[in-house]
Amino acid sequence: MRAATPMRIAQIAPLLESVPPQAYGGTERVVSYLTEALVELGHDVTLFASGDSTTRARLVPVVERSLRLDPSQPDWLARTTMMLDQVFASADEFDVMHFHVDFLHYPLVRRCATPSLTTMHGRLDLPDLAPLHRHFREQPLVSISNAQRKPLARSRWVATVHNGLPQDQYRFHAAPADYFAFVGRISPEKRVDRAIEIARATGTRLRIAAKVDRVDQEYFERDIEPLLNHPLVEFIGEIDESVKNEFIGQARAVLFPIDWPEPFGMVMIEALACGTPVVAYRCGSVTEVIEHGVTGFIVGDQSQAIEAARDIGRIDRGACRRAFERRFTAHRMAQQYVEVYQALSGARATGDDEAADEADQRA
Amino acid sequence: MRAATPMRIAQIAPLLESVPPQAYGGTERVVSYLTEALVELGHDVTLFASGDSTTRARLVPVVERSLRLDPSQPDWLARTTMMLDQVFASADEFDVMHFHVDFLHYPLVRRCATPSLTTMHGRLDLPDLAPLHRHFREQPLVSISNAQRKPLARSRWVATVHNGLPQDQYRFHAAPADYFAFVGRISPEKRVDRAIEIARATGTRLRIAAKVDRVDQEYFERDIEPLLNHPLVEFIGEIDESVKNEFIGQARAVLFPIDWPEPFGMVMIEALACGTPVVAYRCGSVTEVIEHGVTGFIVGDQSQAIEAARDIGRIDRGACRRAFERRFTAHRMAQQYVEVYQALSGARATGDDEAADEADQRA
Repeated sequence: MRAATPMRIAQIAPLLESVPPQAYGGTERVVSYLTEALVELGHDVTLFASGDSTTRARLVPVVERSLRLDPSQPDWLARTTMMLDQVFASADEFDVMHFHVDFLHYPLVRRCATPSLTTMHGRLDLPDLAPLHRHFREQPLVSISNAQRKPLARSRWVATVHNGLPQDQYRFHAAPADYFAFVGRISPEKRVDRAIEIARATGTRLRIAAKVDRVDQEYFERDIEPLLNHPLVEFIGEIDESVKNEFIGQARAVLFPIDWPEPFGMVMIEALACGTPVVAYRCGSVTEVIEHGVTGFIVGDQSQAIEAARDIGRIDRGACRRAFERRFTAHRMAQQYVEVYQALSGARATGDDEAADEADQRA
Repeated sequence: MRAATPMRIAQIAPLLESVPPQAYGGTERVVSYLTEALVELGHDVTLFASGDSTTRARLVPVVERSLRLDPSQPDWLARTTMMLDQVFASADEFDVMHFHVDFLHYPLVRRCATPSLTTMHGRLDLPDLAPLHRHFREQPLVSISNAQRKPLARSRWVATVHNGLPQDQYRFHAAPADYFAFVGRISPEKRVDRAIEIARATGTRLRIAAKVDRVDQEYFERDIEPLLNHPLVEFIGEIDESVKNEFIGQARAVLFPIDWPEPFGMVMIEALACGTPVVAYRCGSVTEVIEHGVTGFIVGDQSQAIEAARDIGRIDRGACRRAFERRFTAHRMAQQYVEVYQALSGARATGDDEAADEADQRA
């Protein structure tokens, strides 16, 4: 399990949440899983993150507290500028620097000998990202799904590395209770209304564990709240990690009827880790995560979704868990990233980019 | 008038407005005056700014249109990141790089051999600026008044360079009409209410040429609008540069009853350029710009302000214009900046900072 040749790796996290996050913070959570798995593999990992982070790596606490929780409301841009300076001041102590902080570091990367890569954690169809990435076209980027790349198809993608979860974070549940689960956010692109329709059409209970962001409050009150007043529908609100395991594991299926180009969709692999199959709309990363007929069903409309929900008993829950263990553990994620790190630092050592291109082929 | 040794100078402007600005944009205006005056002095000047800028320098149009006017609402941070990369890519073509864009460039400056300086154009008492400037404490900074430095007293201030205006921008008005002028913004720290009280107490007309920012709309409606309904008070709204000359020049005095640490206060030197004296509260830069009893009066409360307004005829309007020509032209501003540029590039050539310190002493 220990690395043959330990690498000196810097992980550069966003400062808004701690690593792992205390509240919601998708990127910080993945950075935490990756960091701990790299330590587990025997690498020498330095994590640049807020001081309230918890890690077995060497923590460089670039701010005392995560910015979202700091009552003095520090300026994100000023603090991130300071952090980047600190990272690049110690660049020669690392074999590779792995950024999870959008794009502010690109001009510094161009002027630094240590290889680096940037994982894109969000959607990439914002209009300014295209000219930005044309300008910085040599920056090595990692996508969290192949589908995510589409708006920046001509960037230098060195790999797709699907997100992963610690193997024991979620426990296998062989025998579910009799409900469907919807987990995540209430927002127009997540289409909880479709989930409710599926539940009603199949006569199956739907339990909804989801937060409502302020920006979605009006949508929630206008479009969703009226639908919740139904004997089959239960709205629980936001749940924390500790109860998620039971909530998802007890479900007959997780419904994922999205209507947007989901970059990854952590809830799908949380479901698989529990042995819970997924009924998902064919959008974004879905076809890369779910194997149709094996770990759930991929559907294109509501009639297919309702049929899939009725047939969900045909999916072997053990197969779901096995797919998770094979493809979506943090260990697998870390191993894949190490291949990318080695390719990039090898490319630097030999002075060409072929090794990086090779890593790309393998991904 | 031509420089003995022309310098290769980069001016890096904000992208929100063009240089000069079409609408309000205090920084962009000063950058324009400085750039044109440096060209006039015979220097080789490159201006990094939006493509709708107008200059006799070499323009590098880093975006097509100033961001505030671009209907596609480009992301300021992405565009500024791209601009900074472009600036530093050509750093070795310059003897000095002069930044007017806050702090995003500091980490790049640290890793660049070409000397640079940053002019602080705004207030510096925002809480995040202190830790930021402790971190980047070696960055050469220029203040636009000595008073402005106070919150960052321990930074590396290499000079104070007061803002300047082109010598012929405003025309001398020997004989004013019978009104006081208030020019600028309606906001709590500008205290137009004090100006109105001064006008009423002295029985003199007050003409107010000021814009109301959205953030100040409620203050305007609640606190100021009721005061405007008085036969001595006339509210004109925002005026453009073309009518400012007559508006200020015809005034017996400009009233500047501020209640905040004004970093500079362009309207004071616009007044002096017209030969119009200023009645100003002792705040921020005021004591550095106005000579009490010579170019106006500096006051501490309303009774002093009213007395000063009554006595304003004792101020020689010719002395105001002469003070402007001696101390506040763009030509003088450019000459002073050239001294700073020479000290910084000399310090680099000789490998020490004494030359920079010398420039500081002279300022």
